[in-house]
Amino acid sequence: MTGYSRSAETRKIAAEIDLCEVMETAAEAVVGADLVILCVPVGAMGAAAKEIAPYLKEGAIVSDVGSVKTEVIEAVYPHLGDRFIPAHPIAGTEHSGPRAGFAELFDGRWLLLTPLENSSKQAVAALRKFWEEMGSDVDEMDPQHHDLVLAVTSHAPHLIAFTMVGVADDLGRVTSSEVVNYSAAGFRDFTRIAASDPTMWRDIFLNNRDAVLEVLGRFNEDLSELQRAVRRGDGDKLHRLFSSTRDVRRGILELGQDRKRKPSKK
Amino acid sequence: MTGYSRSAETRKIAAEIDLCEVMETAAEAVVGADLVILCVPVGAMGAAAKEIAPYLKEGAIVSDVGSVKTEVIEAVYPHLGDRFIPAHPIAGTEHSGPRAGFAELFDGRWLLLTPLENSSKQAVAALRKFWEEMGSDVDEMDPQHHDLVLAVTSHAPHLIAFTMVGVADDLGRVTSSEVVNYSAAGFRDFTRIAASDPTMWRDIFLNNRDAVLEVLGRFNEDLSELQRAVRRGDGDKLHRLFSSTRDVRRGILELGQDRKRKPSKK
Repeated sequence: MTGYSRSAETRKIAAEIDLCEVMETAAEAVVGADLVILCVPVGAMGAAAKEIAPYLKEGAIVSDVGSVKTEVIEAVYPHLGDRFIPAHPIAGTEHSGPRAGFAELFDGRWLLLTPLENSSKQAVAALRKFWEEMGSDVDEMDPQHHDLVLAVTSHAPHLIAFTMVGVADDLGRVTSSEVVNYSAAGFRDFTRIAASDPTMWRDIFLNNRDAVLEVLGRFNEDLSELQRAVRRGDGDKLHRLFSSTRDVRRGILELGQDRKRKPSKK
Repeated sequence: MTGYSRSAETRKIAAEIDLCEVMETAAEAVVGADLVILCVPVGAMGAAAKEIAPYLKEGAIVSDVGSVKTEVIEAVYPHLGDRFIPAHPIAGTEHSGPRAGFAELFDGRWLLLTPLENSSKQAVAALRKFWEEMGSDVDEMDPQHHDLVLAVTSHAPHLIAFTMVGVADDLGRVTSSEVVNYSAAGFRDFTRIAASDPTMWRDIFLNNRDAVLEVLGRFNEDLSELQRAVRRGDGDKLHRLFSSTRDVRRGILELGQDRKRKPSKK
C-alpha cells in the first residue's frame, strides 16, 4: 500500500510509524494502483483528482472519504469521470493526522456509498467489499440526500458545539478551570466535538452550505421558542417540549437496539 | 438509612431493590436523622423543606442535590434557617428513578457546597466528610457564582441539545432510522443529553432563568456570526473561529490532565 501527503511532516510521521509505503509525489503513489482513496479536506478533492488523473492505470477505481458528497462530485467528476465512486465512512474521532488512526476505527461503523448514475456495478461491488473487509456496514444513498442527513446528524451539531464552547471561554466571570472541573457530561461532549480539525470543518460548511443553513434556520426558530418559554417562566410549555424530545430519544434507543452491531474483529 | 418519595411506585421499587428503609411519610423518614438530603426537582424543594421542618431532631443537618442554588436557598431558608447547607453533586446520567443509581456514581466527581453566611463550620465540615466518603471531590462556591457556572457548563448546553434533537425529528425528509444509523459521535451525545428527566429540567430553567438567558443571548450572537460566515462562504473567518475554539479545547485538555482523579473505590 502506498500513500502520499502534501505535508512533509505528515509524510515523515507516516514513514516513522510504518503506516504505508510513503511516496514523494501523488503521481508515484497512484501509479499501478487498483484503488485510490482521496483523504483530503473536501475543498481540496478537485485539485487532488486533477493531479492524479494522468497517472491512473486503466480500470483503477478512485473513491474518497469526504463528509459532503454533492459538491465533491462536482469538483472531482470533470477530472475522473465514472472512475470516481464517492464514499463517506461515518467514523473518526476529534483527533487528526497519521497517528490518529487505529485498527478498529471502522469496525461496525456505517460507510455510505453514493454511486453516480453511470458507476460500474462491478466497481461499486468491489468498493463495498473493500469497506466490508475493513469492518464497516455499507449502505447506498443518493448524494443530495446524504448531504441533508449529514447536515442534521453531524454538520449543524458541530457548529452548535463549536459555538457553545466559545461562549464558555468568553464568559470572563467563569474561569477555564471552572469550566473543566464543573462541566456536566453534556458539556464535556461539546468540548470534545469542538476540538476537531478546523480545515476539514471549514470545507464542510463551505461545501454543504444550503443543507446546513436549512437545519440551522429550524434550530434557531425552535431555540427561540424554548428561550421565550424560559423568559416567561412558562413551565407547562417547557415540560411539554422536554417530554417530546425524550420520546424521540426513546424511539432512537429502541431502533438502536434492533440494529445488530458486528462483533469487533480484534 | 431511611427514605421517602411522594410516588408510591418509586417507594415500591426502592423497597424491592433494598435501596433503603422505605417510609410511608416524609415525617417518618426524617425523625431522628442526623442528616437529611432533599433529592427532588428544584421547584419542589421549598414544599419538601416545609413538610419535614417540624419533625427534624435538634442539630440535624439538611442538605440537597439541586442543580440550582440561589432560588433553592430562597425557597428553603424560610423553613429551615441555618440548618440548611446547600450542595450540588455534579454527577448523574440521563436515567432517573431509584434504579438509576450505582455504587460508583460519585467516585471522583465534584460536589459543590454553597454554604450560607451563618452556616455552622462544624456542620459544613461534617457534610464535606459525608460526600468525600461517597468518593466525591468537594469544593465550596458562592451560590450566585455556582448558578452562572452551571448555566454555561450544563443548563444552556442541555437546552441546545434538546432543541437540536427536536429539529432532527421534525425534518420529514430524514427518517428516524437514518438519524440513528448515520449520526456521528457528536449527535449521539446530543440525543443522550436530550433523554434526561423533563420535570428536573423544567425546574432548572424556571429557577436559573437569568443566568441561562445571559448565556443563551451570547450563544445566539456567536451562532449568528458563524451562520453568516457560512452563508457568505467566508472560509477565512470560519477557519479562524474554529481554530480558536480548538485552542480553548486544548487548554481544557491540559488542565484536565493536571487534575488528578481519585482512584475508584470499588
